[in-house]
Amino acid sequence: MTRTLQDLETPCAVLDETRMQRNIDRLRARLDDLGVRLRPHLKTTKSVAAARRVMPTPQGPAMVSTVKEIEQFFAAGVTDITYGVGIEPAKLERIVEFRRRSADVAVILDSLEQARLVAAVARRSGDVIPAFIELDVDDHRSGVKPHDADGLCAIAALLADGAALRGVLTHAGESYFCHGKQALIEHAELKRSGAVTAAEHLRAGGFACPEVSVGATPTAHFARDLTGVTEVRAGVYVFFDLVMAGIGVCQLDDIALTVMTTVIGHQEDKGWIITDGGWMAMSRDRGTAAQPVDQGYGIVCDMDGRPYPDLIVSGANQEHCIISVRAGCDAALPDLSLGDRLRILPNHACATAAQHDRYHVVQDGSNTLTGEWPRFYAW
Amino acid sequence: MTRTLQDLETPCAVLDETRMQRNIDRLRARLDDLGVRLRPHLKTTKSVAAARRVMPTPQGPAMVSTVKEIEQFFAAGVTDITYGVGIEPAKLERIVEFRRRSADVAVILDSLEQARLVAAVARRSGDVIPAFIELDVDDHRSGVKPHDADGLCAIAALLADGAALRGVLTHAGESYFCHGKQALIEHAELKRSGAVTAAEHLRAGGFACPEVSVGATPTAHFARDLTGVTEVRAGVYVFFDLVMAGIGVCQLDDIALTVMTTVIGHQEDKGWIITDGGWMAMSRDRGTAAQPVDQGYGIVCDMDGRPYPDLIVSGANQEHCIISVRAGCDAALPDLSLGDRLRILPNHACATAAQHDRYHVVQDGSNTLTGEWPRFYAW
Repeated sequence: MTRTLQDLETPCAVLDETRMQRNIDRLRARLDDLGVRLRPHLKTTKSVAAARRVMPTPQGPAMVSTVKEIEQFFAAGVTDITYGVGIEPAKLERIVEFRRRSADVAVILDSLEQARLVAAVARRSGDVIPAFIELDVDDHRSGVKPHDADGLCAIAALLADGAALRGVLTHAGESYFCHGKQALIEHAELKRSGAVTAAEHLRAGGFACPEVSVGATPTAHFARDLTGVTEVRAGVYVFFDLVMAGIGVCQLDDIALTVMTTVIGHQEDKGWIITDGGWMAMSRDRGTAAQPVDQGYGIVCDMDGRPYPDLIVSGANQEHCIISVRAGCDAALPDLSLGDRLRILPNHACATAAQHDRYHVVQDGSNTLTGEWPRFYAW
Repeated sequence: MTRTLQDLETPCAVLDETRMQRNIDRLRARLDDLGVRLRPHLKTTKSVAAARRVMPTPQGPAMVSTVKEIEQFFAAGVTDITYGVGIEPAKLERIVEFRRRSADVAVILDSLEQARLVAAVARRSGDVIPAFIELDVDDHRSGVKPHDADGLCAIAALLADGAALRGVLTHAGESYFCHGKQALIEHAELKRSGAVTAAEHLRAGGFACPEVSVGATPTAHFARDLTGVTEVRAGVYVFFDLVMAGIGVCQLDDIALTVMTTVIGHQEDKGWIITDGGWMAMSRDRGTAAQPVDQGYGIVCDMDGRPYPDLIVSGANQEHCIISVRAGCDAALPDLSLGDRLRILPNHACATAAQHDRYHVVQDGSNTLTGEWPRFYAW
């Protein structure tokens, strides 16, 4: 029997597969044009069904952010995996186990301490563990400075004693705070040139550095030239969200993930519609608060995914959304009754998706359910 | 074989059962003195093992925020349940099913529309569904104004045609923004007198109003007098957190929930220690940002749960915490190595706990694991 969104309980995560596929095709076409491989980051979806649609082959390549992701995706046949959080002793033990079972899992690191650890474990286990040196091009988080030739070569030298340098890798974390095309183009070039510089330092030092990996959705979409780069990583491009729309990487109607909620009341004197859902369903992410237009906890759409004019989730409790017209706007509050349903565009798809145990799949322009994709969480 | 925290993978949620039990005993003693029943809110723990410790009996009473909580706790033997989110048609159908299976689930509502719905379903199903009228005493969210005698009685009159008015109920949501003992005492009295006033209006209108339910952890701890109140609801008191410490409801060493993380790197020039974990493990909740002392994403403790001086999680990415000394303080950064472990006190226990699939239980002052309590999530 055909089921529709109206048959579901709320709150729940609704995935518009048409939009998702369009987002996948868009980035794939870009990178094909630029002649660079895509390594999709699976941390956004944490779903085998979604992963199969973003990866070029069932085996990968894939980027992950937790050991649980390795576990789940390896069980589903993915073998070409980079674990994207700086390696430490306990997790390295787990990764060596996966490698023993023929998963080609690479690690990342940015210190002598880690290189010594990886080389020692590699020697002990007789497994030439591949490692990327993480670069810090934009002061965002971890990494070796790309101009620190001595530092890079010292790490590579330690790795060479048992492990293998697979390449350099940089994450364009600060690109999330860029705004507009020109800024994003420049940031993408900053990351590219930093990564290529680091690779050249290593090669000049006598180390093979086969891979040059750069990443993040905004720079993947705005890079004009990727000379010297071998792979691009991106995660949130598959769903997109209000933060990405706010920096100009997508339009609102590219956003594939919404949270469906139900009207449970009104506070007429305050101009509020109250729904179920709340921050547990949207996540506490307020990424648009730092952008020119603050979208509260999300933009409110009708059941076909069309935004109501200036209607946002202006406040949230654990299981309640407070919906109102954006401050300073004179749009009318829509006339909604108890039990009516709404779909909310999230600030940050990675955070919102993580609050849900499955995706209810629809096609653009239809409320008919065409799939239910489980997703996992935690560690 | 004895296992300790060091045997776990990180990030993970660590629950100090000694502290939790002390928190439970503290509120129980208070309410026993005041002669009022406690209805613990199970949305904080979402764990059967934890629920059994907070409820006075295995059957309840209990407050819940989702239908999944009803499902899970009813399956574990809890029968006296109030569903604390304004009722709507689809969820009422689910609740009627639970009631048919002998769960005494009450609903809450604040409109004529909802009262008409509940009464109609009650008549149709032949089940005298009990309902609370939700009150809006502090402009926080939903509810009827406690002085609106006509509004209250109109709802009660509709309910009377098939369903049953169980009482009035108010949530002291704004108490989370109070600060200091006097403000909390006054807020608790505001809520008490509002709820009692509403009950008196209903009784004067000829309606029985057996229950007067007030709630939230801050007011539960600071009410000096609960005359006319029959039950107090509270949730986060079981774990406590930095928001509660910030408003003066608990001390740091009352906080029973921490997230354990592992050091994965340093950015020495910036004064940063990088760990795994990040906002996925801590949640995006930044509740202390609005308080006099902003704790970032949490206060950093050693493995015995003792805070390092002025050390906080100053930034977070999805799977990374950036730890540094609080801006403006001159405390030394502790000397930590790759693989060292830390425990982080969260801003908001309800939000942080929700990111984890289990609690690893220890007793205060010990790293020996004494239990592993599963918890559920989503809807």
